[in-house]
Amino acid sequence: MQSEIDPELASRLEALLEVQPDASALLQPFYNDAQIFEHDVARIHMQQWLCAGHVSQAPETGDWFRFDMAAEPLIIVRGSDGELRALLNVCRHRGSVVCAEQAGHSNRLICPYHGWTYDLEGRLRSARNMGDLDLGAHSLASIHCRVAGGLIFVCFADEAPDFDHAAGVFERSVGRFGWADAKVAHRASYTVAANWKLVTENYQECYHCRPAHPEFSRFHATAKPDEANVDLRRSASGLAIAQGIEIEEFDNWPFGDAAGSQGIAVSNDAMYAGSVTGSRDGNPLAPLMGDFKDYCGGFFTYVETGPASFFLAYPDHGLVYLFIPRTAQRTDMEVLWLVDSKAEAGTDYSVEELSWLWDVTSIADKRIIERNQEGVNSRYYVPGPYGPMEDRTQAFIAWYLSQIRP
Amino acid sequence: MQSEIDPELASRLEALLEVQPDASALLQPFYNDAQIFEHDVARIHMQQWLCAGHVSQAPETGDWFRFDMAAEPLIIVRGSDGELRALLNVCRHRGSVVCAEQAGHSNRLICPYHGWTYDLEGRLRSARNMGDLDLGAHSLASIHCRVAGGLIFVCFADEAPDFDHAAGVFERSVGRFGWADAKVAHRASYTVAANWKLVTENYQECYHCRPAHPEFSRFHATAKPDEANVDLRRSASGLAIAQGIEIEEFDNWPFGDAAGSQGIAVSNDAMYAGSVTGSRDGNPLAPLMGDFKDYCGGFFTYVETGPASFFLAYPDHGLVYLFIPRTAQRTDMEVLWLVDSKAEAGTDYSVEELSWLWDVTSIADKRIIERNQEGVNSRYYVPGPYGPMEDRTQAFIAWYLSQIRP
Amino acid sequence: MQSEIDPELASRLEALLEVQPDASALLQPFYNDAQIFEHDVARIHMQQWLCAGHVSQAPETGDWFRFDMAAEPLIIVRGSDGELRALLNVCRHRGSVVCAEQAGHSNRLICPYHGWTYDLEGRLRSARNMGDLDLGAHSLASIHCRVAGGLIFVCFADEAPDFDHAAGVFERSVGRFGWADAKVAHRASYTVAANWKLVTENYQECYHCRPAHPEFSRFHATAKPDEANVDLRRSASGLAIAQGIEIEEFDNWPFGDAAGSQGIAVSNDAMYAGSVTGSRDGNPLAPLMGDFKDYCGGFFTYVETGPASFFLAYPDHGLVYLFIPRTAQRTDMEVLWLVDSKAEAGTDYSVEELSWLWDVTSIADKRIIERNQEGVNSRYYVPGPYGPMEDRTQAFIAWYLSQIRP
Repeated sequence: MQSEIDPELASRLEALLEVQPDASALLQPFYNDAQIFEHDVARIHMQQWLCAGHVSQAPETGDWFRFDMAAEPLIIVRGSDGELRALLNVCRHRGSVVCAEQAGHSNRLICPYHGWTYDLEGRLRSARNMGDLDLGAHSLASIHCRVAGGLIFVCFADEAPDFDHAAGVFERSVGRFGWADAKVAHRASYTVAANWKLVTENYQECYHCRPAHPEFSRFHATAKPDEANVDLRRSASGLAIAQGIEIEEFDNWPFGDAAGSQGIAVSNDAMYAGSVTGSRDGNPLAPLMGDFKDYCGGFFTYVETGPASFFLAYPDHGLVYLFIPRTAQRTDMEVLWLVDSKAEAGTDYSVEELSWLWDVTSIADKRIIERNQEGVNSRYYVPGPYGPMEDRTQAFIAWYLSQIRP
Repeated sequence: MQSEIDPELASRLEALLEVQPDASALLQPFYNDAQIFEHDVARIHMQQWLCAGHVSQAPETGDWFRFDMAAEPLIIVRGSDGELRALLNVCRHRGSVVCAEQAGHSNRLICPYHGWTYDLEGRLRSARNMGDLDLGAHSLASIHCRVAGGLIFVCFADEAPDFDHAAGVFERSVGRFGWADAKVAHRASYTVAANWKLVTENYQECYHCRPAHPEFSRFHATAKPDEANVDLRRSASGLAIAQGIEIEEFDNWPFGDAAGSQGIAVSNDAMYAGSVTGSRDGNPLAPLMGDFKDYCGGFFTYVETGPASFFLAYPDHGLVYLFIPRTAQRTDMEVLWLVDSKAEAGTDYSVEELSWLWDVTSIADKRIIERNQEGVNSRYYVPGPYGPMEDRTQAFIAWYLSQIRP
Repeated sequence: MQSEIDPELASRLEALLEVQPDASALLQPFYNDAQIFEHDVARIHMQQWLCAGHVSQAPETGDWFRFDMAAEPLIIVRGSDGELRALLNVCRHRGSVVCAEQAGHSNRLICPYHGWTYDLEGRLRSARNMGDLDLGAHSLASIHCRVAGGLIFVCFADEAPDFDHAAGVFERSVGRFGWADAKVAHRASYTVAANWKLVTENYQECYHCRPAHPEFSRFHATAKPDEANVDLRRSASGLAIAQGIEIEEFDNWPFGDAAGSQGIAVSNDAMYAGSVTGSRDGNPLAPLMGDFKDYCGGFFTYVETGPASFFLAYPDHGLVYLFIPRTAQRTDMEVLWLVDSKAEAGTDYSVEELSWLWDVTSIADKRIIERNQEGVNSRYYVPGPYGPMEDRTQAFIAWYLSQIRP
């Protein structure tokens, strides 16, 4: 999907880019203008690879679930060939959503409006009482769909950025945490009354963690400047390597490489002594996953790709963060909690304990991001400088500005 | 009310009309653009005759009720001469709504803000402490108002389409069902998060009835293609004619005739064997109405006029469907259930049974129309072809396109 | 804050001003157009002095409370020098609201997002992990702030209108009612789905009081035309003067004087015989305030300034009305009830009785103003003439039109 830019918007953007200060938060209209929001989605979300969920959400032929990005409704469905596909959930008759529920299993996808019937690959198989309709000309639209490390990625672009390198990175990072054999133990959605960039900026820095997230900062070293945690991280990584789990750090996020491949980053981190995973009290939450035989001193790994897909792997559970833009001042944060597929709720883990930390943290993020939007909407808002602990946020904004240029 | 068209909108509409495919659903902007919505209302709803209710809602001098079309608040009031009038519910002082309640009875219409007092014909009779105000120059505005077959019709246009023929058709169709002597037994309003055209399109075809309305399709032949029901319909009509009730079918809806009269259509239909009216189980719901001495094998009649007024007459009850556009993506469906004026609730009919079928059907329609809007809002929506069972929907859309041309 | 006007808006405004009738309510777009609303706020609310609250809301160094005008969040804070200041509640880092609660006490204002720390005068005192950030260049913005008669006034304009005269008028009017030593006994907020001008127009005339406010009209002479109350008012004023309380009436509201000073008006009024204050039954509500030794026959005083700040002083309690525009069709009415600072709730006054009259009156105003907006939104709305009892409303509208001229 390529979209043309309105000339009036183009000249407005050019004027804004002219005065946008360097290494600073964005000017107000980037955060609250409805037309710029639409342009953002067209230039960013419709062009990049986005995580849509986890393979365990559709393990068998005929399993499907919905993933709606901005105003684009998708059906992620496993076909009769065992492959996952991303079909547009828009009937080729009069445009109704074909799959109205959030997830299901069926051999055919039948539009509930007039009964047009598609197969699992999106081909129209029958349309009752439609005369000599050309079935072959009325398949559901589809977009790119890839699986890597148990995660499902989609891309709306006609020509998607190269994803091969990113896929390999996923295999060599969350893949070692066993995410391909994981399952979704819990999911939650947090609606944030703020622009999607304020949400992503928030997630890209832990400068705010100490004031805003006491629960997280109690055990996670990320809340301190990098230089304070060198020894802690080296020690945790060493323990992992001793187990044969060497996860290479890598970073070309979000720009990707010169050849236009998808940007991705992997970084390893550690918990403070006495805690081994992202839990209320630092104690284990679920059975160890993947190649881990031990918690390796609270070793954990972040992976990030594109504008809206972020991952956090602990030895015993994982987090998938999907940020979905809805309007200029509304974003949904979808969160999935992963555990080993063989783990059983109630016996091997408690959903309440498993989800506690990142639920309180997400609720706090919602609150602080909404307050950020509130202040940004003031006539007196002036973009301030990013500090050293906000280097990734700054990189994200630089990339954003490079993408939306008319 | 004639409205001028904004030049920018005019050129945008022309560009859209250029690429709008034939015999197909509309392009996306017709369904979700706020400016096109306003143009729709000005060109369609402000020009056509619209049903506003039933005479039993204001039987006596001084009785009034409100009917709000789009953002236009009306008072339908029976004057001291016994005539019904449609007055604008907008005080000539500072514009307050004069009648704040939904219905009432009074000898004067008194604005609750400053007490300006109008008579039942809308003439300003007194305005306290206003010096030498020219009362005669401050009457409430009024629009055209007609009664036919017990139904009240209004038209906002300066020069309304000729309604004489349509009025006769109403007398000779729902008139035979005794609607002039009916009363409103129940009313309900369904707010649909969708463009008004998606609502009218839905109501104009029963192609969707089998997948979407199992309760309706159980007994109503309309759910099948026309050719499947020829014998059934002929048989039911024959029984009605045998009783002296010959209701002529007629169809120039929605275009009307070359002389510019209001479009109208009448069609007769039938229930399947074993059912006699639109009820949960096919059994009678209320005393027979009008000229009917018998159910005539489940004979029933549809009448339709304008963009938003639809009627369904069974031998023992009737339905009035009023579709009220509010915003580009919001429409209210107002539904009235009619029974004979002498029938008594609890004794002669049960409101719950009476309203069951068209309540479940309206709730289902709300759901499927909203899903239609959801898919139409996708970038990937492509208008598909109308089929043979959607011929009336196709006619409606052709008429719509002819009316909104700049 | 000076804002430039969009050329398209300027020509639209000029066309409207050309046809706006004299001495009449405004044309529709002034009441419901989003772009005109933004222009209103820029030209009116961002230029005039506005009451933000009462000194008792922040009596000690470190006390602060929020006052949000339109989309502008303010912190009203008492500094270490004992002075009140109005700081913008917008962090100079990434724009978060600094004070998220409605009121508090602290020695420093600490942004909850990243912990940037400001002193009570808004100077940035520390920003953790920000390298060599120039603290001096990152103070919170501030606007003009003045105290008069116990009331706190703020002005967003770069060059505020002269307030010295108005301040003196406040001291010599509500000052005599002891408002500098009062406290806030109760507060309430009423959200009105209407343009801010419809709210202010309503408050500027008591022509509507008899039809709309029976509770108020029972005892307050204002509900009648001025000429009917001459003796009553003279008598009450005489009793006050006999006590040494002569409150000079004054009126250059809303235009102010030729030199550009802030417009203000003071007028004295009276209750009908048998009632002494604005209560349910006319009986006293709280201990006498300020210089009053007696109720002086129900003597009371109105003071008004700017577009949105209105005051009502009875001998035993006071009312502060703050009208806060939010969108073209939404306004918040904030109401404060004042009593003597030494009065104790439960013993000296009942909050329920104290707030009864102006709570029922505000609820009624909300209702009638919303009905006004509803009618004004009709295509058939025509601005009608103001009558003699609406002379102040007429003056307000004339002033409004003079201020928004492109």
